[in-house]
Amino acid sequence: MSEIIKKPRVGIIGTGAIGGFYGLMLARAGYDVHFLLRSEFSAVSQNGLRVDSQVHGALSLESVQAYASADDMPACDWLLVGAKTTGNNGVAPAIIQAAAPNAKVLMLQNGLGVEDDLRAVLPDSLHLLGGLCFICVHRTGPGQIAHQAFGAVNIGYHSGPAAEGATRQNIVEEGAALFHTAGIESVAMDNLDRARWQKLVWNVPYNGLSVLLNASTTPLMADPDSRELIQGLMAEVVQGAEACGHTLPEGYAEQLFKVTGHMPDYRPSMHHDFVEHRPLELEAIYAKPLAAALAAGCDMPKIRALYHALAFIDRSRRGG
Amino acid sequence: MSEIIKKPRVGIIGTGAIGGFYGLMLARAGYDVHFLLRSEFSAVSQNGLRVDSQVHGALSLESVQAYASADDMPACDWLLVGAKTTGNNGVAPAIIQAAAPNAKVLMLQNGLGVEDDLRAVLPDSLHLLGGLCFICVHRTGPGQIAHQAFGAVNIGYHSGPAAEGATRQNIVEEGAALFHTAGIESVAMDNLDRARWQKLVWNVPYNGLSVLLNASTTPLMADPDSRELIQGLMAEVVQGAEACGHTLPEGYAEQLFKVTGHMPDYRPSMHHDFVEHRPLELEAIYAKPLAAALAAGCDMPKIRALYHALAFIDRSRRGG
Repeated sequence: MSEIIKKPRVGIIGTGAIGGFYGLMLARAGYDVHFLLRSEFSAVSQNGLRVDSQVHGALSLESVQAYASADDMPACDWLLVGAKTTGNNGVAPAIIQAAAPNAKVLMLQNGLGVEDDLRAVLPDSLHLLGGLCFICVHRTGPGQIAHQAFGAVNIGYHSGPAAEGATRQNIVEEGAALFHTAGIESVAMDNLDRARWQKLVWNVPYNGLSVLLNASTTPLMADPDSRELIQGLMAEVVQGAEACGHTLPEGYAEQLFKVTGHMPDYRPSMHHDFVEHRPLELEAIYAKPLAAALAAGCDMPKIRALYHALAFIDRSRRGG
Repeated sequence: MSEIIKKPRVGIIGTGAIGGFYGLMLARAGYDVHFLLRSEFSAVSQNGLRVDSQVHGALSLESVQAYASADDMPACDWLLVGAKTTGNNGVAPAIIQAAAPNAKVLMLQNGLGVEDDLRAVLPDSLHLLGGLCFICVHRTGPGQIAHQAFGAVNIGYHSGPAAEGATRQNIVEEGAALFHTAGIESVAMDNLDRARWQKLVWNVPYNGLSVLLNASTTPLMADPDSRELIQGLMAEVVQGAEACGHTLPEGYAEQLFKVTGHMPDYRPSMHHDFVEHRPLELEAIYAKPLAAALAAGCDMPKIRALYHALAFIDRSRRGG
């Protein structure tokens, strides 16, 4: 007979497209998953979660352990934070409330330094990790998620009670195993900051230009001017990473550019945020990388121009 | 008794806001002015030209010497070209047709190098000059023009039969006198290329951003991010001018930025072109300055990013 292995209890903080997708996959794999929601609490409580996936088919979770407040959640061993970085100030109390002692908090977010602000307000006993999601997924309605492609979550240790080396490695691998069990690719990363810079090579051009030019990837990859602009922005991210001590793999930007040209048409998350009147994730994707590179003596002028233009758009829209 | 002084005959090539305004002012000052029109020929023939000016009041020219073809125009001593730079390929035959021997052709256009392409196809006997219009004016309907503020036309000699020095100076001063007679400020400039760079300090940020951010000067000057972007773009124009051998006056960009903040709300010409589905003047205002600066070893990365974004917008719109 098989041993009884206690699976860790998982909490999802922010059940949007990212939190909803991974939470549903983990629940279907047999984990005990608890979902914190805000505006969609009653819809998900009543109707469950649904993922319409071009990879896995139509998936649903009928009976969702949904909560409108973290006060009602049981203590979780792993907390997956799928909230937008623009809401990070608000999630710390929920994380602290829902965390078991020595829980692992995994930030499934884009951008640079998203763990730093949170770390300052978390108890020292909690492990903080960053996860980079390579996935094309977006919310289509309350509790309804469309999954177009990919799905990998690469994980790195940020800070917490684990000493350097082996202990950290064990925790990261425990996180990767969590996803593997649910059929999701996951790789342990030894340098989270470097991995975040690497992901910015894609996010900086495509997220911002999708809003600025109101265009998805196919038109952006079809026009000679947007192609040159994308390449110019990518080159600046590579320079910024280099200045911050992270030499990215030779030809990485060129490869990513080429792959995007062959992807099915895709609207980046910032375009969805824009269309659905959510604040744009400008701090994590633009302001922090600009500040980090500048502090290291590297200006990124095209990225700076793009950032200012997006900040104007974001502010105008919310003022109007 | 006063001497009879033969006033020069003036032809207006392209009777939009600029051509219509200056042509009307010259006609009201007693010059014999002939207007070449395309789509608005019949409206202007029947109803005349009207300028609604916040400086001069309501002005009209009831009986307009209007032409649908340059073939029908009498030979003119001065030709004022008010057509958009995007139509410069088409205006050369009209200019040649309407020009008296040794006529002076004055390009009332923004941007860099707008005279160069035309020079190549003009007879050597024609004088070619550039005029920079410091004016807030736009077309509101067929033959109808709104004039918000300013009006000066600064003139420089580009090329032609006049030898260096005194002869050129005389011709430029003859042009300035033409405008003075009509109550319009006009200064002779000794270096047209330098003056065009100087004007780009305004046109590069405000024209492009008015389209990219869909905003007039007041909102652009009210937001901290657009302010920083405008100043960054201005600084690059000053660097580009410097690289091309034109040191602009100390503090010029700062002064222009400040003045714009105190101006009444204004939509630059490129925004009008955008709204009215005309091609954008990207070649003269962006591509040529970028190429000239790059050839002189100066990259202007924020301007390059802005240019690529605008070119994408211009092409998408015309394709759609």
